[in-house]
Amino acid sequence: MDKIPILRLGKFLLVTIQVDLYDRLALNLEADLVQMVNKTNAKGVLIDISAVTIVDSFMGRIIGNIASMSKILDAETVVVGMQPAVAITLIELGLPLKGVHTALDMERGMNLLKSMIDIDDEDVDQDSNDDDIITE
Amino acid sequence: MDKIPILRLGKFLLVTIQVDLYDRLALNLEADLVQMVNKTNAKGVLIDISAVTIVDSFMGRIIGNIASMSKILDAETVVVGMQPAVAITLIELGLPLKGVHTALDMERGMNLLKSMIDIDDEDVDQDSNDDDIITE
Repeated sequence: MDKIPILRLGKFLLVTIQVDLYDRLALNLEADLVQMVNKTNAKGVLIDISAVTIVDSFMGRIIGNIASMSKILDAETVVVGMQPAVAITLIELGLPLKGVHTALDMERGMNLLKSMIDIDDEDVDQDSNDDDIITE
Repeated sequence: MDKIPILRLGKFLLVTIQVDLYDRLALNLEADLVQMVNKTNAKGVLIDISAVTIVDSFMGRIIGNIASMSKILDAETVVVGMQPAVAITLIELGLPLKGVHTALDMERGMNLLKSMIDIDDEDVDQDSNDDDIITE
């Protein structure tokens, strides 16, 4: 396997990581994901890592990279389904996944994304209202 | 890896198959999926096989089994993202996946499931209306 499938779910993209992310696979995932965000105009990326039982600094960095890349393209990233042992390992490795939102499971992650996007939309509305007031 | 993660998405369950389904993995998936359908009261199961490039009769049978098991538990199964080569192989193997609904991608699969569940609900309503008429 040289590709991890990216599923489109409305405004969101969903990635389920089930295998070890070795170098080429991780780079392919990064490239595919930013292309998909661009092509589908996605507002959020959900990364499910419930099948990941072993995590290392490389994997932590890849997740951080994906979140940063998506953020630049105006999409939020939420990591869901982290095993307790993985959370322990990440902290012990000194990788607190800064800038990455997390949620316990898929549904909560989806709700978190929706709430973040709603807030963003409201911000935009607010801004446009302000503009209206100024032009009046 | 000895488990394929099953994600809950509202009334649906989502399974992404990214690796070869060898015996134990396939049996675990069947068992986990029927348990999840039971536990979460799911009305539909989406199986994404976009990462599957090679299919054999075993895999065809497993998908058929999952669909039959889910059907007994009152959940519909839709297989999405099949590669053209996989479709060719399945037919050449004499496995037309009878009783399994298919859709081109995740979004169409989700819409198909929603429409099937709506129809089911309407059937129930229709039946209850008929009963009302008889009792009057």
